[in-house]
Amino acid sequence: MQNRKVRIAGTGKYLPKRRVTDSDMDAALGVPDGWVRKKTNVVERYFIEDETASQMGAKAAYAALDAAGLTFADIDCLVCTSGTMEQPIPCTAALIQEAMGQRQSGVPAFDINSTCLSFVAGLDVMSYMVAAGRYRHVLLVATEVASKGLNWRHKESAALFGDGAAAAVIGPSGPKDSSRILYAAMETYSAGAHLSEIRGGGSARHAAAYAADTADHYLFDMNGDALFRMASQKLPDFLNRLLAGAGCGLDRIKLVVPHQGSAMAMRLLARKLGIEEGKLMCITPNHGNTIAASIPMGLHEAIRGGMIERGDRVLLLGTSAGMTLGGVVLDY
Amino acid sequence: MQNRKVRIAGTGKYLPKRRVTDSDMDAALGVPDGWVRKKTNVVERYFIEDETASQMGAKAAYAALDAAGLTFADIDCLVCTSGTMEQPIPCTAALIQEAMGQRQSGVPAFDINSTCLSFVAGLDVMSYMVAAGRYRHVLLVATEVASKGLNWRHKESAALFGDGAAAAVIGPSGPKDSSRILYAAMETYSAGAHLSEIRGGGSARHAAAYAADTADHYLFDMNGDALFRMASQKLPDFLNRLLAGAGCGLDRIKLVVPHQGSAMAMRLLARKLGIEEGKLMCITPNHGNTIAASIPMGLHEAIRGGMIERGDRVLLLGTSAGMTLGGVVLDY
Repeated sequence: MQNRKVRIAGTGKYLPKRRVTDSDMDAALGVPDGWVRKKTNVVERYFIEDETASQMGAKAAYAALDAAGLTFADIDCLVCTSGTMEQPIPCTAALIQEAMGQRQSGVPAFDINSTCLSFVAGLDVMSYMVAAGRYRHVLLVATEVASKGLNWRHKESAALFGDGAAAAVIGPSGPKDSSRILYAAMETYSAGAHLSEIRGGGSARHAAAYAADTADHYLFDMNGDALFRMASQKLPDFLNRLLAGAGCGLDRIKLVVPHQGSAMAMRLLARKLGIEEGKLMCITPNHGNTIAASIPMGLHEAIRGGMIERGDRVLLLGTSAGMTLGGVVLDY
Repeated sequence: MQNRKVRIAGTGKYLPKRRVTDSDMDAALGVPDGWVRKKTNVVERYFIEDETASQMGAKAAYAALDAAGLTFADIDCLVCTSGTMEQPIPCTAALIQEAMGQRQSGVPAFDINSTCLSFVAGLDVMSYMVAAGRYRHVLLVATEVASKGLNWRHKESAALFGDGAAAAVIGPSGPKDSSRILYAAMETYSAGAHLSEIRGGGSARHAAAYAADTADHYLFDMNGDALFRMASQKLPDFLNRLLAGAGCGLDRIKLVVPHQGSAMAMRLLARKLGIEEGKLMCITPNHGNTIAASIPMGLHEAIRGGMIERGDRVLLLGTSAGMTLGGVVLDY
C-alpha cells in the first residue's frame, strides 16, 4: 500500500554569497565572543545579499537536474517545498519556474507547505503521482530566506538559522533498480501550533498593521523549551510507528538525515531515540537551520560526501511548526 | 493511468457574517450608485468582521463532514488549499485543525498553494494518495480572506472579491460506485507571473519595509486585460487537451464549475470555449471572487441546488496567478 518504486534521481544545493561566521554573529547580536558557537554550534551560515528565494531555488534545481543527468525538458511538475514564501501571490514555484528561464514551459508549478517539513511532505505526496505514472519526473525545491524573519532580540533563536536552497528530482525506479520509498508518515498536533510561529504578514495581521510596537509579531517567535518537550514526548512513538510501517529496525538504517534544527536538541533527541551518533547526518555547523531546505541539503551532502550509496537505507526525520512530526524511510 | 476511483463524499461552505452589498461597495469605493453592479455583476459579497481564515475553514470543514455523513475521526489528512495564508508560520492547515478543536488528533495537516487553483491542485494531487490507499478520507479546505489584501484605489479589482470558505471530503469510490476522477491537468506559464500578484509580505519585501509609499506592494495588483488576453490565448488548447485526456467532449459535461473570477471574463471565455451559458455554474453575483474557495463553493452550490447528481460529469476549470491553468473532469 505504501511501498513506492520511486527514486531520488539527483539532488542539488545553493548557498547565498554572504558567509556569516560565528564571530560575525556574536558582533551582530551583541554577545561575548564565542557565545554563538557555544550556544548553537553553528560556525558559519549564509545570508542573502541580493539573491531572492526563487533565484537560489533555480540554482539548486539546475544542480539537481545535472546530478540526475536530466534537463528541464524532462521535468513534468515543479513543486516548491519551502516554509517561507517569496511573495504572497503567486506561489513561489511559479517564481522558481521564471527564475529558471522556463516561462513558457507550461510545467505545472505549485507549493506544498508544512514549514520545516515541507520537503518531506512534498516527497511523500508527490511520490504517489510518480508511482501512478501521472508525472514521470518531479522537481522538488526548498528555498529559504530565514534571515528576513529573524528576531535579533531573540538571540538564541536568531543564531540558529541560515539561508539557502536544496532541490531533488524524483522519478520512477526501474525494474532492476532497488531504489524505493518504503514508508512515510506525518502527524500534526496543533496543540503546539503557537510554539513556533510568525504571526504577522498573512490575513490575520496584514503588513499594513506593522508598526514599531507590533514588529515582533512579524518575526519568528519560538518557545524552544516547550517545543523540545513536545518533540521528545511524541517522537519516540512516532519513530516506532514509522519503522514498524517500514518493517525494519534502526539497525537497518544506514543514515538518519534529521531536520537540522538546533544541533543540541538534535543530539539529545537522537540519543533518546537510540540513534547512534555516527548514523546522524549533521550539517548544522556550516549551514545553520535552513528551514525546509535543511533535510534535502543534509541528504545532498550525504550523497556528495559518499556517506550513502545506491541501495542504502535512509531515514529522513524531523519536526516542524504546526506542530508536525514527519519521516520517510527510503532505499536510496 | 489517470483514472482514479475517488469520490467527493461531501462539501460545505461558510460565509462570514458581514454582508456587503453593491451599494455598500459603491459608497466604499467612492463611485456613483450602480457602478459596482455594472462593472462586476457582484450584488453581494461577504467580508470578515472578527472571523479568521482558520475559523471559517473549520466551519466549512464540519459542514462538509456532515454532508458526507462522517466525523473528524474518519479523516486521515487535512489539506488547506487556499491562495491566502492566515499567518506565515505555521501553515494554515495546522490552524484549521486547531480551530476544529482537534489539537491532539495527530491528523497530518499541510498546505497546497496554487493561488486561485489551490483547491483544484489539492484535489488532483491528494486523489492519488486516496487511490493508493495511503489515506482513506482527505479533507480539503479552501478559506480565503481577500478583503485584507484589496487595493481600494484599484476599484474594478477591489469590487470583485469576497471572503469565505469551502471544503470537500474526498474518499475512495466503492466498486458499485460510478464516482471517479477521469482526468486532471495543470499548466503553469510564469511569463504571466507578475500579471497578478501581491509583492510584499514574504521574504522579497518583508512587512518591516511597509510604509505609506510602499503600501501598494502589499496589496493585490492585477493586470486584468493582460491576464484575460493570456487566458483566452491559452485556455482553448488547454481545454482540448483536458477533454482529450478525459476521452469526452463538452457535450458529455453536465456542468462546468469555473473559477469565479470576473463574471464578464468568465462569460466571454465560456463563449470562446464553446460552453453553453446554461452549463456554466455562476455564483459570482452573490459571493464575488473568493479566490481558491470559489471553485469548491461553486461545486457545493451546484450539489445543494440539485444542478448535479451522483453520476453526472463535471468539469472544474480555471486560471490562477502564476499564471496557471487547471482543470479536473470528474463523475460526481
